Formats: sequence, structure tokens, C-alpha cells
Amino acid sequence: MTVTKYVYDFAEGNKELKDLLGGKGANLAEMTKLGLPVPPGFTITTDACRLFLTTGSAPASLDAEIDAHIAHLEEQMGRKVGDPTEPLLVSVRSGAKFSMPGMMETVLNIGLNDESIHGLARFSGNERFAWDSYRRLIQMYGKTVCDVPGEEFEHLLDALKQARGVAADIDLTAEDLKGLVADFRKVFEKHTGTVFPQDPKVQLRGAIEAVFNSWNAERAVLYRRQERIPADLGTAVNVQVMVFGNISADSGTGVAFTRDPGTGERGVYGDYLVNAQGEDVVAGIRNTVSLTELEKIDKNSYDQLLAIMAKLEGHYRDLCDIEFTVERAKLWMLQTRVGKRTAAAAFRIATQLVDEGTIDLPEALRRVNGAQLMQLMFPTFDLGAKPKVIAKGIAASPGAAVGKAVFSSARAVEFAEAGERAILVRRETNPDDLPGMIAAQGILTSRGGKTSHAAVVARGMGKTCVCGADALDVDVQKKTVVVNGITIAEGDLVSIDGTSGKVYLGEMPVQPSPVVRYFEGDTTAVQTDSLVGAVDRILKHADTARRLLVRTNADTGPDAERARRFGAQGIGLCRTEHMFLGDRRELVERLILAVTPEDRQAALDALLPLQRADFVEIFTAMDGLPVTVRLIDPPLHEFLPDLTELAVKVAVAKANGTDPGRDAELHTAVLRLHESNPMLGLRGVRLGLVIPGLFAMQVRAIAEAAAELKKAGKDPKPEVMVPLVGAVQELESVRAEAETVITAVATETGVEVDTLVGTMIEVPRAALTAGDIAGSAEFFSFGTNDLTQMTWGFSRDDVEGSFFSRYLELGIFGVSPFESLDRGGVGSLVKTAVEAGRAARPGLKTGVCGEHGGDPESVHFFHEVGLDYVSCSPFRVPVARLEAGRAASGMGGSDSR
Amino acid sequence: MTVTKYVYDFAEGNKELKDLLGGKGANLAEMTKLGLPVPPGFTITTDACRLFLTTGSAPASLDAEIDAHIAHLEEQMGRKVGDPTEPLLVSVRSGAKFSMPGMMETVLNIGLNDESIHGLARFSGNERFAWDSYRRLIQMYGKTVCDVPGEEFEHLLDALKQARGVAADIDLTAEDLKGLVADFRKVFEKHTGTVFPQDPKVQLRGAIEAVFNSWNAERAVLYRRQERIPADLGTAVNVQVMVFGNISADSGTGVAFTRDPGTGERGVYGDYLVNAQGEDVVAGIRNTVSLTELEKIDKNSYDQLLAIMAKLEGHYRDLCDIEFTVERAKLWMLQTRVGKRTAAAAFRIATQLVDEGTIDLPEALRRVNGAQLMQLMFPTFDLGAKPKVIAKGIAASPGAAVGKAVFSSARAVEFAEAGERAILVRRETNPDDLPGMIAAQGILTSRGGKTSHAAVVARGMGKTCVCGADALDVDVQKKTVVVNGITIAEGDLVSIDGTSGKVYLGEMPVQPSPVVRYFEGDTTAVQTDSLVGAVDRILKHADTARRLLVRTNADTGPDAERARRFGAQGIGLCRTEHMFLGDRRELVERLILAVTPEDRQAALDALLPLQRADFVEIFTAMDGLPVTVRLIDPPLHEFLPDLTELAVKVAVAKANGTDPGRDAELHTAVLRLHESNPMLGLRGVRLGLVIPGLFAMQVRAIAEAAAELKKAGKDPKPEVMVPLVGAVQELESVRAEAETVITAVATETGVEVDTLVGTMIEVPRAALTAGDIAGSAEFFSFGTNDLTQMTWGFSRDDVEGSFFSRYLELGIFGVSPFESLDRGGVGSLVKTAVEAGRAARPGLKTGVCGEHGGDPESVHFFHEVGLDYVSCSPFRVPVARLEAGRAASGMGGSDSR
Repeated sequence: MTVTKYVYDFAEGNKELKDLLGGKGANLAEMTKLGLPVPPGFTITTDACRLFLTTGSAPASLDAEIDAHIAHLEEQMGRKVGDPTEPLLVSVRSGAKFSMPGMMETVLNIGLNDESIHGLARFSGNERFAWDSYRRLIQMYGKTVCDVPGEEFEHLLDALKQARGVAADIDLTAEDLKGLVADFRKVFEKHTGTVFPQDPKVQLRGAIEAVFNSWNAERAVLYRRQERIPADLGTAVNVQVMVFGNISADSGTGVAFTRDPGTGERGVYGDYLVNAQGEDVVAGIRNTVSLTELEKIDKNSYDQLLAIMAKLEGHYRDLCDIEFTVERAKLWMLQTRVGKRTAAAAFRIATQLVDEGTIDLPEALRRVNGAQLMQLMFPTFDLGAKPKVIAKGIAASPGAAVGKAVFSSARAVEFAEAGERAILVRRETNPDDLPGMIAAQGILTSRGGKTSHAAVVARGMGKTCVCGADALDVDVQKKTVVVNGITIAEGDLVSIDGTSGKVYLGEMPVQPSPVVRYFEGDTTAVQTDSLVGAVDRILKHADTARRLLVRTNADTGPDAERARRFGAQGIGLCRTEHMFLGDRRELVERLILAVTPEDRQAALDALLPLQRADFVEIFTAMDGLPVTVRLIDPPLHEFLPDLTELAVKVAVAKANGTDPGRDAELHTAVLRLHESNPMLGLRGVRLGLVIPGLFAMQVRAIAEAAAELKKAGKDPKPEVMVPLVGAVQELESVRAEAETVITAVATETGVEVDTLVGTMIEVPRAALTAGDIAGSAEFFSFGTNDLTQMTWGFSRDDVEGSFFSRYLELGIFGVSPFESLDRGGVGSLVKTAVEAGRAARPGLKTGVCGEHGGDPESVHFFHEVGLDYVSCSPFRVPVARLEAGRAASGMGGSDSR
Repeated sequence: MTVTKYVYDFAEGNKELKDLLGGKGANLAEMTKLGLPVPPGFTITTDACRLFLTTGSAPASLDAEIDAHIAHLEEQMGRKVGDPTEPLLVSVRSGAKFSMPGMMETVLNIGLNDESIHGLARFSGNERFAWDSYRRLIQMYGKTVCDVPGEEFEHLLDALKQARGVAADIDLTAEDLKGLVADFRKVFEKHTGTVFPQDPKVQLRGAIEAVFNSWNAERAVLYRRQERIPADLGTAVNVQVMVFGNISADSGTGVAFTRDPGTGERGVYGDYLVNAQGEDVVAGIRNTVSLTELEKIDKNSYDQLLAIMAKLEGHYRDLCDIEFTVERAKLWMLQTRVGKRTAAAAFRIATQLVDEGTIDLPEALRRVNGAQLMQLMFPTFDLGAKPKVIAKGIAASPGAAVGKAVFSSARAVEFAEAGERAILVRRETNPDDLPGMIAAQGILTSRGGKTSHAAVVARGMGKTCVCGADALDVDVQKKTVVVNGITIAEGDLVSIDGTSGKVYLGEMPVQPSPVVRYFEGDTTAVQTDSLVGAVDRILKHADTARRLLVRTNADTGPDAERARRFGAQGIGLCRTEHMFLGDRRELVERLILAVTPEDRQAALDALLPLQRADFVEIFTAMDGLPVTVRLIDPPLHEFLPDLTELAVKVAVAKANGTDPGRDAELHTAVLRLHESNPMLGLRGVRLGLVIPGLFAMQVRAIAEAAAELKKAGKDPKPEVMVPLVGAVQELESVRAEAETVITAVATETGVEVDTLVGTMIEVPRAALTAGDIAGSAEFFSFGTNDLTQMTWGFSRDDVEGSFFSRYLELGIFGVSPFESLDRGGVGSLVKTAVEAGRAARPGLKTGVCGEHGGDPESVHFFHEVGLDYVSCSPFRVPVARLEAGRAASGMGGSDSR
């Protein structure tokens, strides 16, 4: 029988063992292996944690393993835990596979008790430090292991400082702290009914189990849901010999980055705090100094640190972030990892590393992602103007928005109607705020996180949003918001940055993204702007790597032209319904109100040349590339005024004794066409089969436009797409009609244009019977918006605003299924349909034209199931190109946690 | 190499070969094999037809085979085809696997030409008969083979009769007919450009190919779609020696049934027509006599026929219908098949045959079906009252309805509001008529078939409908309908029978179904009424045979009691939303309008005892049987007034300068809750997760009611069903809350009641992720109504009235997917979900509670996929019991074409 090993000395692990040792443990082991000065220690595996969490107790062999490793530490250090003369202290820290900053527990100074405190005082030569360490232990242990309310300790500390008339902990004397320890112990006894444990073994076991349990603390669970970290990973626990940055004036602690994580520039970046421990830096009580100052303070340690930074970057082949402590002029490494960075830094660093010969271009492509590229494409505020940041919230939905503060939905609508830009400021939003959210430039709330109503709805609309800016005191009654003493009233200008979460007072100048300027044709920027150059190089590589084609959703010539500049390889979705709007609405009303077949045909005849002109424009813009035209999809009543509005108009006219006139006629038509669930009613192919001549008119407009261009020497590639098909018989009927028209136009014009006829797969039944449908379809285009709506039974208009934030909170899904394709449900339909369709018709062309076509995570799925192309809005085309390249380079998803 | 045999002599086939020889051919062969007097002939197989239809030409070997079989006929008969002295004539008739009466072609008298006509005249001794036969050949051949417009022949015949001053063909002389032949030939030449073919071989080939082609005639295609006969079967062709019932006064033709197809009584039933051919009977020009008259006319033939009828019934072990001809006092059998019968006859005959020892009870069960039982359960008109049948239309939706004629939807609504029963009479209906269709007792139209708007919508609502009664001349302007000289005005009473299609003038007395009286508890009827006795015996056998349990959908105690009498084995769906209506609506409004959590809880607390009382009543009615209670499903705005109505009220009040009062408050709430697609909005489990305490209140009401009954010594078996689940996490959340409440109630009452918690599978995603969901569900109940709506993207309220009739016409489906489960789409989801659910949780309980649970065809599907139970409306319970028994007895579907 092999006994599972639950404890690894730092010298035994390496950076590849993150599953087992967690991120921190694996990197501590890696640094130990590299011979860097790491305080000795060991890691208790995630296996042990999972066993503890499922069975309620630690593995039987764990205690003995821990004892053996502690003995080894004592041997290495020549000191003993709990020793009254020269005690060895250890820290106990969590460390999961994915970083969950601040979510789990830490206990420092394990090993201090009423005896060893004296040893520490003597040994350190610093009695104040020793008592401060003891009080920290009781405080952390009490709170973390024994659930003693943390604020009781804090109140005692605050009261003492007030009594002594001092501001900082550091100004308290050894005697003060000794008294505080006595008080802390009383609090501990009051809440636990026992004295503070004196046995270091008991302290250690208690701390380890507390770390295990903290995996399931409420905030950790919530964080994992939001970050989509699996709930069953568990955390590792790192037990490490304590080193003290707060032991003397020639001690200190700091963080360092091997490159600037904000811009990607090379250099020495970081902060240092003299005579302090890591938690003092976090508390932010004293100001840190720039890391470069360390050169003056302790040149030796500084030089050593720089050498280690170079070594780590070379070893990790990427930007590293580092935590270190100096104890009496000796440098100790406490943590390293590949560092987080901004989107711009990600692109710059990736190409720098290529230039330095550290990585190749395919690796550079894997180092960036579509979400980062998207961030770079939003306009930003020009920060040259000495901006006044008044608050920082959660960056909920990107963009830079400026407007006058308003405090109600109704006012936002009124401002918009008056042509004024508004920022809707609310404590939090609810479904009643929807009209205001639509009307405003951006949304700012003081409460709620990434899954709050405001955040979910704003992302769904693509509207800039900063939420949870908790420094704001919003008073809707008074129509003011107070923040750090500044009062903003209705009508005052504010600017919000949905990418950084920053809130500015006044109007910030907005500058367009240089990346977008470059996509739009400003090619000089490739040379002059290092960011644009980096994006250009990586995107070009993505284009050579990817298998997926990227098309765009565009309904007009100008949109098509823009998308083509952005790299679109055709149109995957050209909606024809907008061609029924504007000044053509009158013709559409004629069509709908037609009583005789002749009236109806006359209306269609009048629409034909207008539609044809639209197609000429679009085919010209996309000359030589495929253009998929979707026949009309929405129900006809969408082209008429709203029922309630008309009913009110007619009733009020009658009440006033006036003639409702045309409103009465429209009201009758709208009543006739009224549907209780229009999404599931008479639309798409159903309209085409019920209204004679409608689809034929559209197909004729397409065919005539294509023929006209071909005669002029162009190369149009039209594809006719039938929406909402659920049964192959529907498609067969439309196909027969379409082929008749196409043949007729070929005869009339003397020009033949190859024209594919295919269908959207957007009704679940279409996916379920895709094998049959492929018999009549030359292509499938997955309409994943409707497919998501019908597969989940969600009407997007209704559900995003009403209960999605609650669902995200409850973890029913980690991200809205309208943002990122639901693989388990909708995805399984897509996969089934692709397989059945290809089996029935080898070479069947497949693509996606829902909004998911531009979502990074979803692009990987579409690559995996083998679609031929994705189609997305023009703005998302570069993102899709990048992610398609990454997918082909073997990245499993767009995230790089 | 084996050459495929395409032609079978009647002596070679048998009744099992319907696939190959068609129904008629197989039965002619069977009769030949039995030694009955069948005119010799042969059958060309459906294989030949299919080959002809796919390749456009007959198999190469077919001509030679036909020649050989014709030669064999000539040999048997001692006469030759085309012989100028004693010519042999043959008929060419279609005969598909499934009967398609009147849909395909027939050509008689093949072999007549300018020479053989004289032979026939001499040989028959009847010149008039010979010329009449020739004119029939030219007419049928011209129309059928050469597409000569049939009406041109008919006009000539009519003109001749008028010129001669006679009413019937039979009154024309040989000379007249000779002249008509000449005229017919001119018509033939005018349209075809050739003379009428003289070569019998050419005639025969032409007729055979015409029959092949008639398989794809428009009316045949339409008929197959409606009857769901596969389109690729093809028809066989029967070539048979002609015998003539119209050759002499001692000749004739008739039809016979071995039992009364109307009642099932034993005896001699049928009609006979002297000196006539079968087509004369169909034309209905002369009146037939009862078959018993044949005894007086030709005792020999009569006795022989009776002996043959007995032999056939013994051989086929069922009622047979027979066509025969007497040629100069010699009896010839032309066709037999198992005869169609009414629903009552089906049950009576099946049990008679059991009593006679011909079949056993399992076979009797297979001989009847649920559609027949359903017909027997509708009330009927009491026909003792000498009814005045004024028209007959298509029996579109069963039932017996009486009311005053109205000619517009609006008037039907007005009548209903005034408490008057109305029958809505229209030429045809359209979506504007929906309110009137809902308000009326029944619907009567003069146009349209089983798939017309009126028929589809009426069936969907379960409303009595007779459509396509084309004798009615409906004048909506004048508000009258004229039929055979009778004028019916608005307000006149009419009665319509949706089971027979008959329309009666005046008020017919309605009598309840004796079968329903028996189900309701009138057990004496088993002895006194042979029909009830038959139903009782067969249904009891079905109960012993079936594997599926049958539950009912019932929301009240009385409904539950009734269903239990009808044989329900529990409740599969108890909807709780109706418990929120009536005088409780005010409490629900309080719940919806609640601003604070306290207000909301107060409203819930007030609802609790009311819901509990409902459950006590239902659990009592179903004591000892499972009751599945569905937590509230519809969106809350369904409990409030309509948005448009409120908007109008508020606007009009304002226009009039009055205070809208509470309407304004309700209007605000309705606006807030308004959804563009409520079916896909905030309802079901979503409500439960968003409104704190709502589901908990309902679960508490269930648990408290169950505890109360158990304390009283009863055996309640509650099952809590969560609607609209799409993801297992939703169910987990509700389950946790429900279990907490159930445990709390057990503690409070001291009584533990086993309570299952499960889910509806009605959202496609639930079916797709059924394996996950089964992890948290103790049962699945398929909500096939919503599942059909979401899988097809159909809102039933909207689509049935707007385009279903068009879809049925186009053959996009053969029957509404709301009537009969769509196996290919929705069915595949059900199958997948059952399999995945059972794999994840062996023993998972599965059932269906959509309306399909009571549909005969669908019950077979649910048996096949292995559900544990079906649940349907109380009225459908016996139907489901019967069909579940039939399914277990190995019937593949409910139809017995």
C-alpha cells in the first residue's frame, strides 16, 4: 500500500505543480530550486484540503508528516518552535491554484507563547517588536481560528492609541503592547471559554484547519462564482519560517515588478516600506517609497534584488511580480508569480519579449487575449488635463462617458429628449430604471458588483457603467451625490471610465483609441505608436494562424466598408428589416393594410427598387466576398405603432369627441396582428410562407442587384438566408420559390450569379433535425441569440433587466448566456447540428451570426466544433480575428487567470 | 443475376403482401386463393411504380411481363384482347397500401377499338351497352391518360341528353351513343393532335402509366399529407378482366358488409343496383335497393354471396366490406377488405368476436383505439326527435353544440355576454374571429377542410366545429345563411354535430354519453347497454395489459374525485395558480404591490391558510395516490388587469379630468411588470428565486396539509414540482429551501410525510442537461406544451390562429404538434432526457403532464421511451388507459388505417 504524500518541502516542488501545491506554494518551491533566498518551509497539498472539506477531518497521516517537516525546519534553522530562548516562528498562509486575493486566511507568528515571547524579545533585541508580534498572533488566531469578532481587538487597539495620544501602532511602547496582549487574551477567553493556546502544535493545527475552512467562506464562494473558478479545487497551505521586516530600522518589506505592469515599459518598478511587515503595506497607514529608493537605503539588498528579478524574468519568460522582505539587511524572497498587467502592457510586453528573443510570435499571441484588445478599442479620457478623480468603483462595462448627473430614470429620458447627455446616478438600479439607462450616456452606482442589475444590463446594452463606487453618498430625494466632501447636484458634469472604474468631476476630454485609428486606416501609427505596432504584429500573426474565417454583421454600405477595413472577410448577417424603416415605413404600412392581392403586390413592387439599391451598395462594398442576406425576420406589427399607445390615442380622441382618423385604422390592424409572445409568433420563414410575394420580392432584389454588379464587371457573392426554420419542409418551400426567382432573373438579365440558399439554425428544433434540414440547406448559420432565448426560455429584453443579476449572484450561471455561449445547453445543440448537418451534406458551410461570434470565450468554442466562420459586429472583428488565432494556437479559452 | 419480378398473377399473391401489391391487389389475390369467383387478373407491384416515378420510365422487363400475363388471361378466358369477334376487355385500377378513396385513377374497358366494338356488340347482344362502353373508355382514357379536360366530354353528354329530352344516360339509344363516340373522338383529337389509339397494347400501357403518375397528383399528395401516409410508397396497378353489371337486366352491382358498420349488429347490410356498373353507384343517379332485395331478384347469387361473406369474415376474422358484380346472373367478387366502422361498432364487434371465439381479448384491444373511445364520450344529439338535417360538412372538432346563429365575431361575444348560446357561422374564419370562436358554443363554416383555420383553432380549444359545409350560402352582410331553400337568420337556432359533421335546424336535444355515465358510476349500464359492456370489458383488459400508469391533471377536489372515478392513479399536475384567482386576487395584488418585505410577507401569510385548505381537499380526494403539485408558474402580471386596458382607463380619466384612483397605481405596477414575451420572462422557478418567501409559502401549505391528513389517519403522497427549470442550480436552490420548510413542518407537527421534490422538463435546456438536473430531481415530469412551444419557437396562443392552417395545407406537419407529440424534434428531447436522467439517477420517476399525455398517438411514444406515467385531463383518462394498454400489446401507433 502506498501512503499518499500530503506535505512537500519547498525543495521538493516546482512551478508546474500548481494543482497540488497552489500558485504560491509552487512558485516558492520554484524559487527554492533556483537557489534564491527563500525562508524554508513546506506546503500541505490541495488533496489534503479536499479530503478535509469532504470528510470533515484531515487525513490520518497528516499530523505525522507535519511534525517531520517542522523537525526538518528546526534542523535547518538551528532553532526550535516554542523554544524559550531562540524560538522559531512560522507563518501559515493559504495558496490556491488560482489567485483569490484577500479571500482566504493567514496566521503569522505561530510559535509564540508566554515563554517564547521572552526568547523572541531577547533574541531580536527588540521587546516592543516581540510584544507587537504576540498581540498580532492572538488577534489573527482569535479571529481566524476561533471566530472571535475582529472588531473587538481593533477597538481595544484604537482606544489604546487614543489614550496614549498617538496615531500609529509604531508609536506604542513595549509596555503598551504588553498590556494590550493581556486585554486581547481576555477577549479571547470571553469568546472561546478557554485560554489562548500555549502549545505551538495546537496553534499550528488550528491555523491549518482554519485555512482549509476558509475555502468555503462566503466571500470566497462568491468570488469563485464571479471569476468562474471551480468550487472543488480546494486550497494548499504554506507553512514557512517567519522573517521580519519590522524587526529593526535596517529591515523592511516591498513589492517589485520586472516591467511596468501599467505600460509594459522596462525598468525597476515597485514600492518599499522600511521597518514593516507585508500587512502594514496593505493597511496603507504609512506611505511607501519607490523601490529605487532601496538603492540608497540598502545597496546590497537592492543589487541582489535586481539580479534576482532578472533571473526570475529569464526563468519565467514573462513579467514577474515579487514580494520580498529585508530582515536586518538580509534579503528574503516571499513570493513571485507571473504578474497581472494592463491590456496595453500585455501587447507591448509580448512583442518586447519576441524582440528580446525570449519567446516567439505564436507564444506572444497566446500571451494576449480578445478582452484586452477590446479594452484598447474603446475611446479613453485624455489624462493630460490633470483630472480630478473623485471616486473609484468597479469597471462594470467599458467606455468613457461624459454627461450631466441625473438621479432618476425619468430625468435621464427628459435630458436625452432635450438633446443633453446625462449620466444616470443611482444607489443601485432596478427594472424601473431601464428607460433611463437606455437614454443615458452611462450609469454610475454606489452599490453592487459586477453582477448587479446595473452592471448586467449595461453590459447587455454595451453602455458604459461604473458600479459599486461606495465612496458616493447618493441622495435621490435631494438629487445630490456627496463624495469626500464634494457635492454634485443634478446637471453637474461628471465623467466615468468604465474600463478603469474611475469617476471624474467635470467634463473630461475623450480621445479615440489609437488602435481603432489604425484599424480605420491610419497606418503611420504602426511605426509611431509602440502599442499599435504590437497589436499589428500579433494580429497579423493571428490571421496566419487561424482556421476560422471572420465575417461581419452589417446592414448598410458604410458599415460593410468599415468592417472590411477592420478585416472582415464577408458579411455573415445582413438584416433586411431596417430596409423597411425610415421613409419606407409608409410602403410597409400599405403592405400590411393591403386588403386585396393587388394592393399587396403594388406595395411589394414599390419596395423592390429600394431594396435592390440597398443590395447594390452592400455588394459593392463587399465585392468578391460572400454576403449572407437574411430575409425579413421580425413580425410585421413591429413596423406599426405600439398597441397601447394607439389604444390610448383612439380612446382619448373619442373621449374628447374628435375623430381618431388614421389612428383608428392602424389600431384595428395592430389589434389584428397583436401577439402575446411575438418572438414565438408570425415572423421569419412563417411570414414568408403566409404572405405571398414577400420573400420573392426580396430574393428578386438580391438577384437583380447581383446581376447588375456582375454586368459591371464586379464579383458579387450573394447568399440567401432563411430565418427561423424549424422543419426542413419550410425551407424546401422557400427554396423552391427562391430558385424560381433566381432563374427568372438570370433569364431576364442574361447574367447568372451563383447564389447559395441556406438557413439560420436558431430554433432548437432546427438543431435537433439538422440532418434533415441539411438536405435542403447549402449553409447553416447559427443564430445563437434566438437559439439561446429559446433553449433557455429567456426573452432577452425581459430577463436581463428582471432577474439576471439575481441569477449571477446565485451562481446559476457565471456569465450571462447572451454574453458568452452556454456550452452545456446551447453549445450541445450547435455541436449536434454541425455533426448531423455535415454527415447529411459533406462540405456544408457553417457559421455563426449571433453576437457570440465576437465573444472571445465563444470564438474558442466555435473553433472547437469546427465552424467555417464567425460573424460579428464590425467593432468586434479584430477581437474575433485575434481569438480565432489563439484558438488555432491551442489556447483552450480566452482567459489567462 | 436475378431479375426482379414486377407482375404477380392474382393466384400468386396473398393478403400479407400489401406493401408490394397494395391493399386491393393483395385482397384480390387472397380471394383468388380462397377459390372465390374473382375475375382473373394480375397486379403490377409498387416497386415498379416507385422505379417509374424516380427514373421517369418503367423497368425494362415490365412490358414483357405484362404481355406474358395478358396472354395467360387470354388463355384462361378463351378470348383475346382486341379480338374483333369476342374481345376480352380489362380494367386498370390503382391500389396503394393504404386506401386513398377517389384520389387516383381508373380506366375501364381497355381493349375496345373500332373493330372490337362490333365484336362486343354481337357477343353481348346489346349494341347500346357496347357503344356506351366505348364512349366510357374514350372519356376515361382521354381525361386520365391524355389530360383532355373532362368537362368537355360531360358537356357533350349533357347536351345530347337535353336534345333527346331524357334525364338519364340509360335512356340514350345505341345510335345516340354511337354519335357521342364520334364527338368524343373529335374532342380527343382536338386536344391531343392524334386519333384515339386503336392498339389495345398502347391503351394498356398508357393507362398503367397514368395510374403510376396519379400517385403524385395534387389531390393525392394533399390527401397523403392530411392522412400522414408516407409519400414514397407508390401505388400498385391491378389489371383485371372486365365483368359487366350493366350488360343486361339480370346483371347488377353492389356493396355488402358482413356486419352493420354503423352499430356493429350482425346481419346482411349493403346496397344493390340492377343493370349498372360500380361508377353508376358512385354517381348516385339512380337509387340503390337494400341488399336483402337481391334475394328476390336473384336468389342464387344472393345465397352464394351470403356464403362468401361468411367465409370472408371467418377468414379475415373481422367485419369485411365487399364489392361485387352480377353479370348475367353470375356472381363475381371485385374487392374485399376489413371494413371501416363507427366507434360504437368497433367496440361492439370486437367483443362479439371474442364471444364468438374468433379472437381473444388482447386482439380485441388492438381492434379499437383511443380516438374511437373519445368519440363515444362526447354528448350526442338525441336522434329520436325526427331531426331535420339541413347540411353535412366535415367533422372538424367533435361534440354536440346548440345555439343561435350569429355571423360575426363581435355578435358572438355580445350573445355570450348576454348569456345566450351562439353558433358562429362564417364562410371561413380568420384570426380576427378568435374572440367570437371563444365566445360561441360551436363554429360552422361553409368552406375549408380539416386543416382550415376554423378546424385547427377549434380543435386546439376543444370547441365543437363543422367546417366546409358547402351547401350553406353564407351572407355575412345580410346576416343570413341559405341552404337548400331554407333561410336561417341571426338568432335562429341551429345544432351542429362535430362528430358526424351534420347540421340540424332548430334545437336538438342533447343526451350525455352512456359511456361517460358509466364512468361516472352508473354501473348498471354494463349489463343493459351492449356498447358500455364492450367498453368496460376492453378497458379492463387494457388496465391489466398496460405498463404506463395514468394520472390526471386536476386543480380542485371535485376534479380530482371525478378523475379518480375515471380511473386516474394520482395527480400528475396540480396547478396552483388558479388558487390565486377569484376572491384571492386582492391578496395577490397586495403581494405584487408590496413595497417592504413586511408587506410582502403579510400577503403571503394571508394566502397560506387558503392554499393549505385547497391541498387538504385535493389530498383527501386522492388519498393513497401521488399528487404532484406544481409551484406557481405564470408571470405575476397575469394576475393584474391588462396593460392596454389600464392605460386607456387612466388616459380617459385624465382627459375627462377625473381621478383614475387605484387604476393609476395598478397601471404603474403593470408597466413595471410588463414583458414583451411573458412566456419567456419572469415566471416559474425564476419567480421563486426572485420573490423571497413565495415558494416557501406554497411548500409550507403542502406540507401542513399533508401533515394534517396523516394525523387524521389518511395517506397523503405529495410531490413538489418546480416549473421552468433550465439549469440544475435553479433546482438546487429551490430544493434547499423546500427541504428546510418540510423539515420545519415535520418538527412543528410531529408528523413526517415522505415528500418528493422534482422538476418539470419543459425548457429545451432542461432536456439537454437532464443528466445534471437528475442529480437534484427525484422525478421528471415532461411539460410537453411548453417544450413544444420552445422547441419549435411557437407561442400557441399566437400561431394556431395565425398560420397553422397554412402549415397543415403545405404539409409542413401532418398534425398540429400541440395535438400529437412531434417525435422528430420534441420527442428526441424527451428521449434524450429520459436516458440521461436515468443514467444519472437509476429509478428516476418520469412522467408527462402536457396535453399530449391524453393523445392516443403520443401515449404510444411515451410507452416506447419508457416513462412511468402519463397525466391528462380527467376526460382523457380512459383514452390514455386504453392506449397505454394497446401500446403494451404491441400496437405501434393508435391508427389502424
